[in-house]
Amino acid sequence: MTSMQVVLPDGKKLELEAGATGSDVAAAIGPGLARAARGIRVNGQLADLFSTVPEGAEVAILTDRDPEVTNLGRHTLAHVTAQAVREYLAAEGHDPAAVKMGIGPVIENGFYYDFDLPRNLVPGDLPEIEKRMRRIVKDDLKLRRYSLPREEALDRYRRLGDPYKEELISDLPADAPITFYEQGGEDGFTDLCRGPHVPSTGLVPKHFRLMSLAGAYWRGDETRPMLQRVYGVAFNTKEELEQYEWQLEEARKRDHRKLGRELDLFTFADDVGPGLPLFFPRGEIMRHEMETYVRDIQTRYGYEHVWTGHVVREELYEKSGHIENYAGDMFPALEDGETRFRLKPMNCPSHMTLFNQRHHSYRDLPLRYAEFATLYRYEKSGELSGLTRVRALTQDDAHIFCTEEQIKEEFGLALRLIRETLDTYGMTDYYVQLSLRGEEGKYVDDDEKWSRATQALRDALEAEGVDYLEAYGEAAFYGPKADFMAKDALGREWQLSTIQVDFIQPARLQCEYIAEDGSKRTPVVIHRAVTGSTERFMGVMIEHFAGDLPLWLAPEQVRVVPISDRHRAAAEKLVQRFTDAGLRTGLADEGERMNAAVRDAELLKIPYIAIIGDREIEEGTVSFRSRQEDAQNGVDVDAFTRHLQESSRTRTLTVKPLGS
Amino acid sequence: MTSMQVVLPDGKKLELEAGATGSDVAAAIGPGLARAARGIRVNGQLADLFSTVPEGAEVAILTDRDPEVTNLGRHTLAHVTAQAVREYLAAEGHDPAAVKMGIGPVIENGFYYDFDLPRNLVPGDLPEIEKRMRRIVKDDLKLRRYSLPREEALDRYRRLGDPYKEELISDLPADAPITFYEQGGEDGFTDLCRGPHVPSTGLVPKHFRLMSLAGAYWRGDETRPMLQRVYGVAFNTKEELEQYEWQLEEARKRDHRKLGRELDLFTFADDVGPGLPLFFPRGEIMRHEMETYVRDIQTRYGYEHVWTGHVVREELYEKSGHIENYAGDMFPALEDGETRFRLKPMNCPSHMTLFNQRHHSYRDLPLRYAEFATLYRYEKSGELSGLTRVRALTQDDAHIFCTEEQIKEEFGLALRLIRETLDTYGMTDYYVQLSLRGEEGKYVDDDEKWSRATQALRDALEAEGVDYLEAYGEAAFYGPKADFMAKDALGREWQLSTIQVDFIQPARLQCEYIAEDGSKRTPVVIHRAVTGSTERFMGVMIEHFAGDLPLWLAPEQVRVVPISDRHRAAAEKLVQRFTDAGLRTGLADEGERMNAAVRDAELLKIPYIAIIGDREIEEGTVSFRSRQEDAQNGVDVDAFTRHLQESSRTRTLTVKPLGS
Repeated sequence: MTSMQVVLPDGKKLELEAGATGSDVAAAIGPGLARAARGIRVNGQLADLFSTVPEGAEVAILTDRDPEVTNLGRHTLAHVTAQAVREYLAAEGHDPAAVKMGIGPVIENGFYYDFDLPRNLVPGDLPEIEKRMRRIVKDDLKLRRYSLPREEALDRYRRLGDPYKEELISDLPADAPITFYEQGGEDGFTDLCRGPHVPSTGLVPKHFRLMSLAGAYWRGDETRPMLQRVYGVAFNTKEELEQYEWQLEEARKRDHRKLGRELDLFTFADDVGPGLPLFFPRGEIMRHEMETYVRDIQTRYGYEHVWTGHVVREELYEKSGHIENYAGDMFPALEDGETRFRLKPMNCPSHMTLFNQRHHSYRDLPLRYAEFATLYRYEKSGELSGLTRVRALTQDDAHIFCTEEQIKEEFGLALRLIRETLDTYGMTDYYVQLSLRGEEGKYVDDDEKWSRATQALRDALEAEGVDYLEAYGEAAFYGPKADFMAKDALGREWQLSTIQVDFIQPARLQCEYIAEDGSKRTPVVIHRAVTGSTERFMGVMIEHFAGDLPLWLAPEQVRVVPISDRHRAAAEKLVQRFTDAGLRTGLADEGERMNAAVRDAELLKIPYIAIIGDREIEEGTVSFRSRQEDAQNGVDVDAFTRHLQESSRTRTLTVKPLGS
Repeated sequence: MTSMQVVLPDGKKLELEAGATGSDVAAAIGPGLARAARGIRVNGQLADLFSTVPEGAEVAILTDRDPEVTNLGRHTLAHVTAQAVREYLAAEGHDPAAVKMGIGPVIENGFYYDFDLPRNLVPGDLPEIEKRMRRIVKDDLKLRRYSLPREEALDRYRRLGDPYKEELISDLPADAPITFYEQGGEDGFTDLCRGPHVPSTGLVPKHFRLMSLAGAYWRGDETRPMLQRVYGVAFNTKEELEQYEWQLEEARKRDHRKLGRELDLFTFADDVGPGLPLFFPRGEIMRHEMETYVRDIQTRYGYEHVWTGHVVREELYEKSGHIENYAGDMFPALEDGETRFRLKPMNCPSHMTLFNQRHHSYRDLPLRYAEFATLYRYEKSGELSGLTRVRALTQDDAHIFCTEEQIKEEFGLALRLIRETLDTYGMTDYYVQLSLRGEEGKYVDDDEKWSRATQALRDALEAEGVDYLEAYGEAAFYGPKADFMAKDALGREWQLSTIQVDFIQPARLQCEYIAEDGSKRTPVVIHRAVTGSTERFMGVMIEHFAGDLPLWLAPEQVRVVPISDRHRAAAEKLVQRFTDAGLRTGLADEGERMNAAVRDAELLKIPYIAIIGDREIEEGTVSFRSRQEDAQNGVDVDAFTRHLQESSRTRTLTVKPLGS
């Protein structure tokens, strides 16, 4: 028996027998830790106690205090769900072999499992399945992990008549281990699974709930069978589950699709097609204001805007590598028999083409090209959702052409721009996920360049004081990247802004500049999006503000309501006065009674309602109600106008009350 | 012999023999008019003296005083060119039968003729051909018009081995007359031609010139043979020809493709494709300013902006009739095996779809939807030209949904909006072509509706005091329209703005509103474009201003140049001050000498150059040079800033000099 060494988080080395598992490491450290151990981290990757650890690995033992353990337990809960569904249907008299299974992964807050079942589940089944799940958890069934040779594994599922698992195995690389997790012994439940899991069903997060059912195509492919997906959530505390359920309920009320209808912002039409939103005048104002804001801030930060349209010849995407790597996400080609065109799924090749239309010297760098171009991505129709998942997305996209030495400064500048933007929208709770290369070979192999860039990014994040997490192995193949994960008013996390360093594409598209020494060099390109896409961010903001948009974003900022018909002429004058002051102003419908007019304005969540009657006309004042501050009567019209202008101009979220 | 009547312009009726021609009418009026007659107008249509006039027709005799006669003569000059080319090549020893001919129509200012020749013509040939043309004109050859039965006509060209004329005849409808014009008797020159012409070669506009040669595909089809096109211009006076030639020379200097390169505005790239322009930062600012201006003015005129993207399902264009009538101008479909999508060639069906997403009552009308959407039209690559003929065009498009009664007011409002816009650009010399229905059957047959709408348009034009010409038979099939024909600084005429009444499409797309009486009605839709397309108007404006853009449109409005390096810090402060004041400001390159920096700014035609040295720093002043007013030294910085702000804000063309 040979021995091996692993390295612990404190740097200590531990001597173990070759082939030792996570459990063995924990046991070697001490019996207390062995009992508390739920999983391990090996060379930065999450793994379970069943996994063997390689020679020389850095190993950390994870306990309930480590947040990653929750996801191990959620994964195990997916298996518990599958076992419970099988038992539940068997109890109804269905053949357990008729319960076939797709995949059951961990997702945010929980997990799901896809089934091909002898009958369709309905929401009423979920509490019954949950009961069985609680029993399985209570039984604290031990998990066991084992591998089988490929033929034996295939044979098992062929015998069971389960085509899904058989297909999954067939698609594994020839040298991949084929592992199974068994819970409750041979009579319990066994699933083809890569792991990782907690060591027993008693160690899952205790506060779980099956939330919903949905149809899901096998492997997301619309031409394959439709499976039944069971969604569940799971948390370690009752409070977390309650918070989640509150959030869900609140989100239902704030649903941007519902508010989009009520506030007359946008729509979808069958005649135009799924995922292709149409914006009514009110929605167009909101998106225009959002883009104007980003345009302003980009100009202030030294970006230049360009325009490159929506269609390019397919050859460009062959050069850039998009046809090879990204064709599945693109709209089909437009072909006229001679030329093939594509709708742009991203701007980078176009911006690099524009860059190449001029000779550049190092003195021109950094060059920051920004564009609000609508991009077209062929999301599967089943995955489309309101504005947050569309096929037409207008990115606030930029590409920064710079030297390697400029990466840190440009990255820092982009960080500041993004922070300022998110702050403006009140998205102040965020962190950056810094995605770095892992150990695997999918990355370009200039080690030096990668580590210099990684360090530059870390330095910039430190210098800007931005919280960040490092995610190994999550980098794009072309370079490291930083994604902003921001929490909205409901505490939901959205991936919005992104900054990505690219060492590859500029060379593929032969971008170059003349360096100070006269040599030709390839610039680094930094891809950067501030809010991501206008459409998606608009959806997020509608929910974040629950439709109560800040004054600067509100399509109609103030609505004038005359107390009675004889005040209408004065009301019209007031509308003109506000309009001339640059405020987006509406007027109550003719003949509408004041209370009805006020209610109409409230339904549209118009920030200010300016009421005008005898007293106001006489005094040259206005009385207002507002969603943003306390109502006031008899306010000087000029003071009121300036107050709104100021609040709109400064894009403030918290209005300083008038007269305070 | 039976007799017939025609009606003269003064309302008198004239008795003639049946089958009388234009000449006969002129002769019947009097011998003086018979001598002066050059052509006729029959029921509003231009025709020649050879044409027979139908019973009851309104007939006007045209003489040299009528401007339309010039085009008759230009047409005859095309035949003269063909005769001269054939003689010229025969004199070289070529077989006259090897000189084959396509078509030879009248175009603006002149004509062209397409040939398939035994050798390629070169520019040096043109003066020689012109000499022969002058001889043919001097000989004053009489023209003769005659018809042949189809088979005989076909046989003639089969014998001559001329496939082009043979094809033209084959494509004529079975009942169409097949007419020929012969000049100089049987030994002269004969051409298959519909006419109309002047009665002899001596009556063409005397001041003509063959201008250029070009390749042109037979029938504009890239798969057919390439012919040689000879372009000519012809005018009645020497002054007109000289003006035209000056214009041409000036246009060459102002060519927007040349200026676009020099001023760093836009480019085209092979990788992206022909007709798909890319805008550099300076060009993007110009287009953005143009769109912002139209957006502002549209908002002021009560338009609302919407957003409908660039892609729709093909079904929508089947409903709207575009697939049937317009498919040849559209980009090919995007097809994923299930759904077919199309790039939008126009916004109307999308705006009507958006309209249909809500219920409307008469109280909602007029509803004015405007959008700056980039439209895609698949112009033939041979017809693309800089920005003035592109495949991606961003229209400042609007659709006004209104009742029939509102047509006059809405049309008037659109007229005012367009006038204000054209005035802002200094395009003050324009008239409107009011295109009305002719007699033919291509129009929808609600006579009442048409005549009411026509009268509403006339009334609005009169009320606004806009010059207009009526063009019978030029209306779209869906309704009458008004096109603004505006002259640029060179006197060239451009068709820019358009207002079109549509009685058809709203019904096809089932648009409706509830009328005051509770019934469902179909709204009228008025299509309206202000500058036409941003790209094309930008091309026109670059040439109109010869690149010297007014301050508000200039990508860089002021460039700060320090007198020497030690003034650089002060220059940078000045840049910041101007930028904070909202002026687009640049700074001379570091280390560049003042004179070189000034020259650089002049090459980019930057309107103001602000120079700063010891004296200016000490005094808090600036010295400036300008393309728009006289240079001044030692001007107070605040006064200078306000001066530029004011001139930019008011979008003025003629700057009132500072201090005046």
